[in-house]
Amino acid sequence: MSLQFTPSWSDPDIELYRESVVRFIEEEVLPRDEEARKRGHVGHEIWRKAGELGLLCSDIPEEYGGAGGDFRHEAVLYEEMFRRSLTGMNVSVHSIVAHYFLNHGTEEQKRSYLPRMARGELVGAIAMTEPGAGSDLQAIRTRAEKRDDHYLVNGSKTFITNGFLAGVVLVACKTNPEERAKGTSILIVETEGTEGYRVGRVLDKIGMKAQDTSELYFDDVRVPHDRLLGGAEGQGFFQLMSDLPYERLIIGVTGLATMEAAYQATLDYVRERKAFGKTLFEQQNTRFKLAEIATQVTVGRAFIDRCIEQMVEGRLDTVTASMAKLWGSEMQGKVVDECLQLFGGYGYMNEYLIARMYADARIQRIYGGTSEIMKEVIARAM
Amino acid sequence: MSLQFTPSWSDPDIELYRESVVRFIEEEVLPRDEEARKRGHVGHEIWRKAGELGLLCSDIPEEYGGAGGDFRHEAVLYEEMFRRSLTGMNVSVHSIVAHYFLNHGTEEQKRSYLPRMARGELVGAIAMTEPGAGSDLQAIRTRAEKRDDHYLVNGSKTFITNGFLAGVVLVACKTNPEERAKGTSILIVETEGTEGYRVGRVLDKIGMKAQDTSELYFDDVRVPHDRLLGGAEGQGFFQLMSDLPYERLIIGVTGLATMEAAYQATLDYVRERKAFGKTLFEQQNTRFKLAEIATQVTVGRAFIDRCIEQMVEGRLDTVTASMAKLWGSEMQGKVVDECLQLFGGYGYMNEYLIARMYADARIQRIYGGTSEIMKEVIARAM
Amino acid sequence: MSLQFTPSWSDPDIELYRESVVRFIEEEVLPRDEEARKRGHVGHEIWRKAGELGLLCSDIPEEYGGAGGDFRHEAVLYEEMFRRSLTGMNVSVHSIVAHYFLNHGTEEQKRSYLPRMARGELVGAIAMTEPGAGSDLQAIRTRAEKRDDHYLVNGSKTFITNGFLAGVVLVACKTNPEERAKGTSILIVETEGTEGYRVGRVLDKIGMKAQDTSELYFDDVRVPHDRLLGGAEGQGFFQLMSDLPYERLIIGVTGLATMEAAYQATLDYVRERKAFGKTLFEQQNTRFKLAEIATQVTVGRAFIDRCIEQMVEGRLDTVTASMAKLWGSEMQGKVVDECLQLFGGYGYMNEYLIARMYADARIQRIYGGTSEIMKEVIARAM
Amino acid sequence: MSLQFTPSWSDPDIELYRESVVRFIEEEVLPRDEEARKRGHVGHEIWRKAGELGLLCSDIPEEYGGAGGDFRHEAVLYEEMFRRSLTGMNVSVHSIVAHYFLNHGTEEQKRSYLPRMARGELVGAIAMTEPGAGSDLQAIRTRAEKRDDHYLVNGSKTFITNGFLAGVVLVACKTNPEERAKGTSILIVETEGTEGYRVGRVLDKIGMKAQDTSELYFDDVRVPHDRLLGGAEGQGFFQLMSDLPYERLIIGVTGLATMEAAYQATLDYVRERKAFGKTLFEQQNTRFKLAEIATQVTVGRAFIDRCIEQMVEGRLDTVTASMAKLWGSEMQGKVVDECLQLFGGYGYMNEYLIARMYADARIQRIYGGTSEIMKEVIARAM
Repeated sequence: MSLQFTPSWSDPDIELYRESVVRFIEEEVLPRDEEARKRGHVGHEIWRKAGELGLLCSDIPEEYGGAGGDFRHEAVLYEEMFRRSLTGMNVSVHSIVAHYFLNHGTEEQKRSYLPRMARGELVGAIAMTEPGAGSDLQAIRTRAEKRDDHYLVNGSKTFITNGFLAGVVLVACKTNPEERAKGTSILIVETEGTEGYRVGRVLDKIGMKAQDTSELYFDDVRVPHDRLLGGAEGQGFFQLMSDLPYERLIIGVTGLATMEAAYQATLDYVRERKAFGKTLFEQQNTRFKLAEIATQVTVGRAFIDRCIEQMVEGRLDTVTASMAKLWGSEMQGKVVDECLQLFGGYGYMNEYLIARMYADARIQRIYGGTSEIMKEVIARAM
Repeated sequence: MSLQFTPSWSDPDIELYRESVVRFIEEEVLPRDEEARKRGHVGHEIWRKAGELGLLCSDIPEEYGGAGGDFRHEAVLYEEMFRRSLTGMNVSVHSIVAHYFLNHGTEEQKRSYLPRMARGELVGAIAMTEPGAGSDLQAIRTRAEKRDDHYLVNGSKTFITNGFLAGVVLVACKTNPEERAKGTSILIVETEGTEGYRVGRVLDKIGMKAQDTSELYFDDVRVPHDRLLGGAEGQGFFQLMSDLPYERLIIGVTGLATMEAAYQATLDYVRERKAFGKTLFEQQNTRFKLAEIATQVTVGRAFIDRCIEQMVEGRLDTVTASMAKLWGSEMQGKVVDECLQLFGGYGYMNEYLIARMYADARIQRIYGGTSEIMKEVIARAM
Repeated sequence: MSLQFTPSWSDPDIELYRESVVRFIEEEVLPRDEEARKRGHVGHEIWRKAGELGLLCSDIPEEYGGAGGDFRHEAVLYEEMFRRSLTGMNVSVHSIVAHYFLNHGTEEQKRSYLPRMARGELVGAIAMTEPGAGSDLQAIRTRAEKRDDHYLVNGSKTFITNGFLAGVVLVACKTNPEERAKGTSILIVETEGTEGYRVGRVLDKIGMKAQDTSELYFDDVRVPHDRLLGGAEGQGFFQLMSDLPYERLIIGVTGLATMEAAYQATLDYVRERKAFGKTLFEQQNTRFKLAEIATQVTVGRAFIDRCIEQMVEGRLDTVTASMAKLWGSEMQGKVVDECLQLFGGYGYMNEYLIARMYADARIQRIYGGTSEIMKEVIARAM
Repeated sequence: MSLQFTPSWSDPDIELYRESVVRFIEEEVLPRDEEARKRGHVGHEIWRKAGELGLLCSDIPEEYGGAGGDFRHEAVLYEEMFRRSLTGMNVSVHSIVAHYFLNHGTEEQKRSYLPRMARGELVGAIAMTEPGAGSDLQAIRTRAEKRDDHYLVNGSKTFITNGFLAGVVLVACKTNPEERAKGTSILIVETEGTEGYRVGRVLDKIGMKAQDTSELYFDDVRVPHDRLLGGAEGQGFFQLMSDLPYERLIIGVTGLATMEAAYQATLDYVRERKAFGKTLFEQQNTRFKLAEIATQVTVGRAFIDRCIEQMVEGRLDTVTASMAKLWGSEMQGKVVDECLQLFGGYGYMNEYLIARMYADARIQRIYGGTSEIMKEVIARAM
């Protein structure tokens, strides 16, 4: 069917780029996925491989080691990963970290970290969430005390994507506990050989099995003064806020890509599979469900395309990005659930793509700001 | 709130045109609506007024008396009507009839009917549906027997929009009852002074009270040979099929416009209205509902805009248009229902816009092809 | 199909009673419905007829002129009315008024009003809601100033069910404007010949066309002291609260009865109606929708039956009754909407039962406490 | 809150029994669950322990080694297991197998198998589903050829609950491949030491991690003639059909029990958990969601209770049981999903009950007959 799934923002160069992304994924990531899922992380090697191929930090300027592309290149990578339910190697958090450096770092910080991130030598992570504190950034309790030549960091974080493999972690801390937003700063913690830094459990989750979501502990960790992101204290909250459209759109993009692939996989399945003498596709219920899904996906493609175009033009606002996150993750949940049902018992088996998609999808409505927070953000702007 | 409601396809000329449309509607249509709703039709005068102002047949070429615009001009008119729940003067069916003439009529037929339709002298209607036959065009029983110098038409039609006021009716008939699709032709019936033609009841509907939806009866009605649309028999089914994207997109456009206006009216209401000491808008439930609605409307705007642009470029396919119809009418139903709830008891009173919108909305999922037929169409293309 | 629709609380006596109710409805109410819908009220005669037949106040003790039955008799009457979308003659509000007298009235008040209500001579109404005040009883502004031998009542009310035909109105007033709940009292206003009392517009609603929902105005209306309900000031709020389970269960009962009848009417229709060569019932989509509806109705019947049994035993709590109201009205909305869709265009025509049910249903989620208020009540009890 | 969650069919004896069930579960099953989830099965020991305590085959007559109770005893066991998301030890399939013996087995078969099943020595499994064949029993390809002193069984089965631990498997086979339903028989296969019988993979599922759902292979397995269930060929299809109400109600019961426990766990969590300065429970959105859930659970409790009572009385029909399966599993999916959302990121972590419930719940809409099959069954009875 001529579903209008082709992104309106693509062009021959982008499609060429997509081919190289797909090649990497199918040759390198996919064959190692089962093992990664068992182990709970994808390992360092694949990150370096991606770096070698120039697939990391694709929208970071070349002068900092990036590929000098734009958000469309990023989108292509996320789309092709999520279409195959490859959620272990979290390139989007890596990119978000790179953007924190690009947008808020000192020139020295950019030159120090971005090239290593682009090469896949340093995997990036963001340490915001604390046990029991959820999305309330202002309630952060991790403390960074300023000493003569370093900050002394104490506290713990949880739900940290890429936590086990991370070489560089942006840690949201209280530098001034008497202030709320204004007392928050972001420190750059290099994990290699840092005393007092410890990765806790790789968390046992419903899905995203190859993703090393972890707890992090900081016990008297010393962070040199020049690793304060941007060089000025009290900017952390505003730094975190300013990149929200970028982060939220990514979730919208991955939600849509998952739906498109789930639709396609289901269509293929129901055309083959017979029950009671005819294919599932010949059942009116199957046809109607797929028609509803195809419609939602087509509607969503127009919206997400528009958001991507606005992002590339630098004019995507937070509210619209929050809608992309809200709509993309909520609809992903519904669509994947309905697709799975059409697979019957096979849909519950992890060897099937749709099963992995189902287990992965549930967190999309929660991380990056829950659906409830998105609604609050949207309503506030009314 | 900066909801991205402004159509992407608009430009200063279109917005100027929109102003004249709004002026006409607010000065001429709106003040007569209550009376029209009681009477069951809007009367002939308003049609002529619209014609004088150049608002009818805006996308018909000037050589046939139209305004020489494109679908965007049509969309503006539908949007502004539905935003005010002014569903009595059915300009969309009128336009669809004009397009049948433009796309399928003989040169003579175009020259004869289009200018009079553009001036609002002849209101157009399409007589397809028959009692008990629904959307199954091939099951049509109205018979047109070919005689020496005319067709003799016998049968009856129901649910005919603009049926009471219509000056020209395109009647789907069987010219060859042994064939199904190929036996169907469209005859042009002028209603003025035509013997054997009779308008039955103006139907008592849940909503759309000012719309003269009627039954039509044909008892030995004589239609001259040159009033066979296009001049060749057996083309009716294909003529009806070929204009479906146009018709379906219109319903999508009106659905979206209704949602946008319902959202705005509700937001205004809940900001004013107090209960238990605070405004309704301060209630989290209200905020969340409106955030969900604003999201759906924003998503839908991107999609409908894309469809409109494709229509203007002549490349909107039937499947995507069917999605516009399906999504637009289904979401309209949900959104208007949820908005109404926030009005409490006032939402049930016809003096409130939201109440009229609710009663009007229910038919959108049914006419122009039910949601079930849209799903069938979409599934067939897979 | 052996849907388990037969109420578990019924018995041969109740079924005999049901027969007499059905006879009255089919012989007296139904034939006059169309006329009543046009006129906006059912007239006094039908109330007297119902009284003669012993169908009013069926659960009021015989010593006060009632039939001495219990809530099951009431339920039967509501069920049979709503099954036929006969919502003009609002017997439930009438009963609720009777229960206010029974539960809170002085002996004299009971003896004065209950027999006349049971005979249908006095139609009962409750005047709580005020323009702009919704369900917030404590915000009532209608003032009753105590004078030597009467109260002087000033204010206005809106959305008053049975407002046009009412012979006796229970008016919630502020007797002490400095108090909130404790300043509220209920006065008994006889409408016949009462100076300063005026019925405003019979409101133009989406549905419930035969129901005389009205505005009421009180300009220096004199109400004798002995028409203070219960004889003590400041009891109004508590009197209104204490009968909530009764009122809420009634809406649950009518919601379920409507669903059962909508299901049956739709099943009959889709078995007859053909499209594209087979009956609608042979379409899988139709079958699945009806299976879902039949399931919801069966589930609901078990719940409502349990509530009715608890009501008869005098142990239905407010929270469970609020659930009956919430579930019954919300599910009614969904079921009737889905049934209507299966009727296609006919479903939008008021001559069809399903169309009237649709227009009537929308208020059920609003009056008697909106769904939002029900949720608040339920959550408070957690 | 006084949610009416206490089953109406309970009594002091049943509650005493419930206490012993809870003791067993909390002392024996729960502490071993994490290990069982890792290993993929619960092991034989726990089955024998349950047998010793008299908790298996509780509704099987004492003469066959059962406890001589009724369906209420069974329900109590399922409820308490699912309330804790303990889905590894599948007592319901075990019971269903026992009922096949009881209802269809020869006297000798009953005496041979039921006591061992009741003691937990033999775990029961049913082998119906074949790779690629789903719920279409008539399409079974596993072949049982009758030889002189045995049947020779060849074929394979998949999705077999208790497959790894099973000591006795009821295998649906074709004894006459020329017939469809009438060619189907059930053979009793003892797994211990049976040549040609092989357990394939324990399947890797989204949830139900401690449940040994397996593939089974039969290569020239010899089954003595006297292990033909009931002793006559061609009865398999009818034997499988006749116990459907029993199996379907069980899923309804477990669905409801899961919802009740999910509700309770969520209520506890949101009362504790703070965000942005107040508890989650103080958020209106949380309150409204919980109120909706409490309502659905209360409605469902009335329905499932009624079904259980009818089952005990031996008059639960297949259609109503299918509704219990459909409603129970569908609502379970919705409720658990909504509860999980209120836990935020913790809801995605398997250490939380709600996460395990979510992963477990998805199969309930599929096994025991998918929701689609339930709808077909219900529609057929109309």
